[in-house]
Amino acid sequence: MSRKILMLPGDGIGPEIVAEAEKVLNKVNDQFSLGLSFETALVGGAAIEEDDTPLPESTLAKAKEADAILLGAVGGPQWDSLPMAKRPEKGLLGLRSNLQLFANLRPAILYPQLASASSLKPEVVSGLDIMIVRELTGGIYFGQPRGVRELESGERQGYNTYAYTESEIRRIGRVAFEAAQQRGKKLCSVDKANVLEVTVMWREIMEDLKREYPDVELSHMYVDNAAMQLVRAPKQFDVIVTGNMFGDILSDEAAMLTGSIGMLPSASLNAQKQGMYEPCHGSAPDIAGKGIANPLATILSAAMMLRYSLGEEKAAEAIEAAVSKVLDQGLRTADIMSEGAEKVSTRAMGEAVLAAL
Amino acid sequence: MSRKILMLPGDGIGPEIVAEAEKVLNKVNDQFSLGLSFETALVGGAAIEEDDTPLPESTLAKAKEADAILLGAVGGPQWDSLPMAKRPEKGLLGLRSNLQLFANLRPAILYPQLASASSLKPEVVSGLDIMIVRELTGGIYFGQPRGVRELESGERQGYNTYAYTESEIRRIGRVAFEAAQQRGKKLCSVDKANVLEVTVMWREIMEDLKREYPDVELSHMYVDNAAMQLVRAPKQFDVIVTGNMFGDILSDEAAMLTGSIGMLPSASLNAQKQGMYEPCHGSAPDIAGKGIANPLATILSAAMMLRYSLGEEKAAEAIEAAVSKVLDQGLRTADIMSEGAEKVSTRAMGEAVLAAL
Ligand SMILES: CC(C)[C@H](C(=O)O)[C@@H](O)C(=O)O
Ligand SMILES: CC(C)[C@H](C(=O)O)[C@@H](O)C(=O)O
Repeated sequence: MSRKILMLPGDGIGPEIVAEAEKVLNKVNDQFSLGLSFETALVGGAAIEEDDTPLPESTLAKAKEADAILLGAVGGPQWDSLPMAKRPEKGLLGLRSNLQLFANLRPAILYPQLASASSLKPEVVSGLDIMIVRELTGGIYFGQPRGVRELESGERQGYNTYAYTESEIRRIGRVAFEAAQQRGKKLCSVDKANVLEVTVMWREIMEDLKREYPDVELSHMYVDNAAMQLVRAPKQFDVIVTGNMFGDILSDEAAMLTGSIGMLPSASLNAQKQGMYEPCHGSAPDIAGKGIANPLATILSAAMMLRYSLGEEKAAEAIEAAVSKVLDQGLRTADIMSEGAEKVSTRAMGEAVLAAL
Repeated sequence: MSRKILMLPGDGIGPEIVAEAEKVLNKVNDQFSLGLSFETALVGGAAIEEDDTPLPESTLAKAKEADAILLGAVGGPQWDSLPMAKRPEKGLLGLRSNLQLFANLRPAILYPQLASASSLKPEVVSGLDIMIVRELTGGIYFGQPRGVRELESGERQGYNTYAYTESEIRRIGRVAFEAAQQRGKKLCSVDKANVLEVTVMWREIMEDLKREYPDVELSHMYVDNAAMQLVRAPKQFDVIVTGNMFGDILSDEAAMLTGSIGMLPSASLNAQKQGMYEPCHGSAPDIAGKGIANPLATILSAAMMLRYSLGEEKAAEAIEAAVSKVLDQGLRTADIMSEGAEKVSTRAMGEAVLAAL
């Protein structure tokens, strides 16, 4: 049995952090006889430089064949003035839609060792453990029609379409209800049903699904209130489910509550549990190439990959335990540095995790 | 000279808090010989009960004639299952669009007396003073087409349209640049230009406007990053400008950073500076009728009204000074109560402001 892992380092700090995660995966591959084989391909800005497109055919083909993908990050200022269709982000969006990775799981967890990094008061965030389930292949990100048109008045109008079908809502709803069943059994669906018709339907379908999951307590919240409640009392949440755009905003807000976004992994799954795994943070062009980026979110993304796409719970737990151990040892990259801790480089952090395995 | 003020108490705690603000307005009307005259009308759920519509013709007619409007809040669970067109919120949205109140100003200010109410660490929020300028009559709130349709496959699809014309963007941009000129001269425009075409145009027009305001430093931020940065380091912001939907989310998030949303006023202005003023908090049905709601956001909204629509800066400052004084005296409604302070009712708080005037 051989399982194919595609590594997509991408841009900015991507290559540095993916390199550390690859070492970690190699080690658990041996330790647990996982039978993983690795390939690498270009995506985002790196692919634009080489192939003039953010998502080369060859990359997409490899992605489709892979059992799972580990992505670093895409994007950087040097590509910011390209037309939208040619930008690095289109590589990411293209992978999501071509592989139908509709379920984005974004945990926001406060590591007790890093509690002081949060900008929130300790009593508000200590023990925080939220899972945001974001729909990732629909909504306004992919809605048609879209563009810029000239009106009769002669002025231009920009427009996008926010649309969801019943089945798109139903499948992400199921993922969220199932996640809630395995956690605290509380699901909060976030919408703007007092203004947007598409989210009225969203709410109806969540209500409808509820009957299939009688053990889960479902609530609804408007997105503006959710943005407030995350700041006011984030521990009221267990699992949050929402559409692509609201999920983009709320998952980043929730991640930042922990103060250590350099620690947070994410998974994007399709119906076959094939998945793309990536850190929540971006390509951080300002620190790229300096060897100081935090590889832990990518290493923890590799753990998520083992758990969700490969069913290797033990290997996943081993990685997570190793990460916890290096934090206990007081090792910190610059982004999570605090007084009394030991500041280490990207590579030293990766090596410490290897040693802890 | 007589200037007409329309009071719209609305639902939930609306009537209680508007009553206190009206007393305050009456007092400064005398003190500063402002020549204000007052009328009252129904909107939201209160209007639905009486007239079967959230925005009766008579209310709209009075609103059009008024120099300024003071609104309490609309909405409540008893109307939540009505079809969208009949809900209390449509009263609010109808006023905004009929009066073309396109510029929504939402300050997020941390009152030093209430610093401990914030869920953020004191050093992160002390001295916080942000102004969010939200476009209020366009974007996805009003975009057409919208609704639910049946696809050929037989399944339903919900859809909304996010659209802006050049002139809509330009006029809200000018309001924001002007606000920045009168404040810290820093403007951050929030968009999602890496994904949404309409916001690519938004960004272009903000860049274009920049040349007319050379003294203002303009930056751009993606909305997901803005949601993070507000949590991480909110004091980096001076003025934020954004569209209707992102503004709804970010202004509530920013308001909650202060921990005392019961203190925050807002203004919604049209090109003639006619305006509707309302507290940022909602109708709080759970505490309606109990006499414990905080009237200060509404009283401060009345001060904003005097400043922006009536040009009565002195009277506005008198109200703001009176509010500051009652906070110094240690008076607190339940929502902002803290140890050692004196808990007071809605009416007692209103009376204390009157006494301080
Ligand atoms: C890079 C960008 C297109 C992307 C998104 O908006 O989905 C990112 O913010 C994310 O959340 O993964
Ligand atoms: C009540 C609702 C329609 C409204 C909005 O979304 O604009 C409210 O949240 C606000 O921000 O004033």
